[in-house]
Amino acid sequence: MNLLYAQSGGVTAVINASAAGVIDAARKHAAIGKVFAARHGILGLLDEALYDTAGVDTAALLNTPGGAFGSCRFDLPSEADEPAVYDRLFAVLQAYRIGGLLYNGGNGSMDLIVKVAESARRRGYPLISVGVPKTVDNDIEGSDCCPGFGSAAKYLATSMREAGRDVAAMTGRSGRVFVMEVMGRNVGWLAASTALAARSADEAPHIVLMPEVAFDEEAFLARVRQVVERLGYCAVTVAEGLKGADGRPLMEQARDARGYVQLGGAGEEVARLIGERLGYKHHYGNPDYLQRAAGHWMSATDREQAYAVGAAGVELLMAGQDGVMAAIRRLSDQPYCWDVIAVQAASIANLERRVPRAFISDDGLHVSELGRRYLLPLIAGEIAVPCTDGLPDHYIMDFPLMPRLLPDFRRSA
Amino acid sequence: MNLLYAQSGGVTAVINASAAGVIDAARKHAAIGKVFAARHGILGLLDEALYDTAGVDTAALLNTPGGAFGSCRFDLPSEADEPAVYDRLFAVLQAYRIGGLLYNGGNGSMDLIVKVAESARRRGYPLISVGVPKTVDNDIEGSDCCPGFGSAAKYLATSMREAGRDVAAMTGRSGRVFVMEVMGRNVGWLAASTALAARSADEAPHIVLMPEVAFDEEAFLARVRQVVERLGYCAVTVAEGLKGADGRPLMEQARDARGYVQLGGAGEEVARLIGERLGYKHHYGNPDYLQRAAGHWMSATDREQAYAVGAAGVELLMAGQDGVMAAIRRLSDQPYCWDVIAVQAASIANLERRVPRAFISDDGLHVSELGRRYLLPLIAGEIAVPCTDGLPDHYIMDFPLMPRLLPDFRRSA
Repeated sequence: MNLLYAQSGGVTAVINASAAGVIDAARKHAAIGKVFAARHGILGLLDEALYDTAGVDTAALLNTPGGAFGSCRFDLPSEADEPAVYDRLFAVLQAYRIGGLLYNGGNGSMDLIVKVAESARRRGYPLISVGVPKTVDNDIEGSDCCPGFGSAAKYLATSMREAGRDVAAMTGRSGRVFVMEVMGRNVGWLAASTALAARSADEAPHIVLMPEVAFDEEAFLARVRQVVERLGYCAVTVAEGLKGADGRPLMEQARDARGYVQLGGAGEEVARLIGERLGYKHHYGNPDYLQRAAGHWMSATDREQAYAVGAAGVELLMAGQDGVMAAIRRLSDQPYCWDVIAVQAASIANLERRVPRAFISDDGLHVSELGRRYLLPLIAGEIAVPCTDGLPDHYIMDFPLMPRLLPDFRRSA
Repeated sequence: MNLLYAQSGGVTAVINASAAGVIDAARKHAAIGKVFAARHGILGLLDEALYDTAGVDTAALLNTPGGAFGSCRFDLPSEADEPAVYDRLFAVLQAYRIGGLLYNGGNGSMDLIVKVAESARRRGYPLISVGVPKTVDNDIEGSDCCPGFGSAAKYLATSMREAGRDVAAMTGRSGRVFVMEVMGRNVGWLAASTALAARSADEAPHIVLMPEVAFDEEAFLARVRQVVERLGYCAVTVAEGLKGADGRPLMEQARDARGYVQLGGAGEEVARLIGERLGYKHHYGNPDYLQRAAGHWMSATDREQAYAVGAAGVELLMAGQDGVMAAIRRLSDQPYCWDVIAVQAASIANLERRVPRAFISDDGLHVSELGRRYLLPLIAGEIAVPCTDGLPDHYIMDFPLMPRLLPDFRRSA
């Protein structure tokens, strides 16, 4: 039996560690022949663009951010809508004698696991499908946390901590505000993680704005003024998906009011507001892709979990657990203990886990002690990645694709 | 004799290493009594806001980004214009028996060294004034490189290298472009440093736009299209101060054309252009303060040089070298050898060192081999900074200021 592994959705600093976990675990099973990796996720399976991972250096993969095999954003249509897509998919699986599918992605990827597993059962095709979770957004239900999140969180909390030192030093007689925008269209997990940067109430960030709490302009500005009057400066984290009281993203409102589209998101709008309403000097930073690609500053805990869910995915598959996702279960906070369990993909696919109210401070402008307690272990541990000439070494796939066995496929839609 | 040390201008990841160099070197001289540090640069001297550094843990300072004593942006007026400022300055120096001034900053700070040294000579006040260079912009003349630059360069080159992996993985059938904006209003040193991220022509960044080369929209867009057609994606570095053929910053032009001010700079405008003219998907990142505060990813070479110019400043001062700056001299590229020499502050103050044409590729869209050769040693070496709970430990000044000896001072201007 051969396996197929593929990466899907936005990549992370440690998704390749999950790939390494899959490949290493599979190499230990005599019953597993080849592990193929699809280029650009499910699209590579449909296109028959496959790598043989036999020669992949998994130790080097561990230190490489991004998706070594390429990822994609593609929602698999239902079989009722596009049966030809499923016919093709199973034709490729059959041509390569693939009996196990490991799909490494977020909520949408778990939906794919459900759809493919159901189709295989209907068709009587012998396939075990297992989901391997991945997302910097930390929004997959059923897993205590998601591999990829811890490293992005560590990077952002460190960045806020360092920028806080900078702004504090530059503070003169006039107030100064730093706004950092972080990813999170619907959930505030990454924004919340920056709260860890503050070891006291005086340290940055002083305010954390999450999409889970409707933006209250007046309350926010009053708090900024308070902090500036106390410390001379203020540092604010803004999730890109921050929403107003009417539930509309801040950016949409700004677009309507001003008649143009900004590339910067809610953070830019919040920074503008501070300048216009309070007259403080302000700076706006947006690390964008940097936050999910920061392989030079991975969380050791996160990378270990990413590897573990990949390896566990293979074990679940070999145990015949079809249609499940390998999930992280938290056993205790301090000391932090966790293991990997199986959850039914169908029970969690397409859901979106938001930051619970109890993790947010009462005033809605910061993270609660309970939230800190949840977040803290996820960023623990540093990894000295190998470097040459001052820069991290990355593993770059330079094998050719497998020669194709089947004719071209084009979706009729 | 006592010394006064102060930090000025935008802070860096390693300006506190220069402070550590000053304090450590001074502690070895029996002839030196106390080392005072002014809070917020020269403003702290005028305000008589001084710390006694006797209790400062210099080993911890080494690992702390930002300016531990506070910095300022303040151009010292000429003595002819504001004699009262100089009267006050020397009154404070005299009250604390300060015979040596070490001012840690950029081009403007070297101008201060010149003005204060001249005034002291005219007044017959026994003072030796020495400049200690610092700037992420790398634009001080007379020094082969500037402490602070190497760490920001290492951070930005690493960030571009990592983001490049991300964009490459996410590339599907449509083109995708990532634009990273970096600091540099007038000089392209930081933009140039990101070129180190590419170990081959296929790796990010594929284009580097510096203020030294007038932005040629058509040539730029043609190159973006070329790269996307070859690789499927393209990564671009844009210096915030990028200028058009008429010498005007891109951002001013955008403001005039669209009637509004963006907080994002030239990078946002370039990203918008790619979307409008080429129709490619695009992402825009702007690390802002993060790039000059990234203490978790310092260049070991840079920190060593920052410490060395601080320590050398004390030695120059004790040798009676008045009105000089401690400068880095490059002795060889490979192996990289350097030492610290004295240059006359008057010969370099207020100048601005731009990226030489020979460091830029012929087409003006990247860095030349000569440029790479210059930049490469400056980002060498990693430092494992001490961390607690996954985040870097920082030294935070928590001593009270010295009790004041003099009455308040207010500038009549």
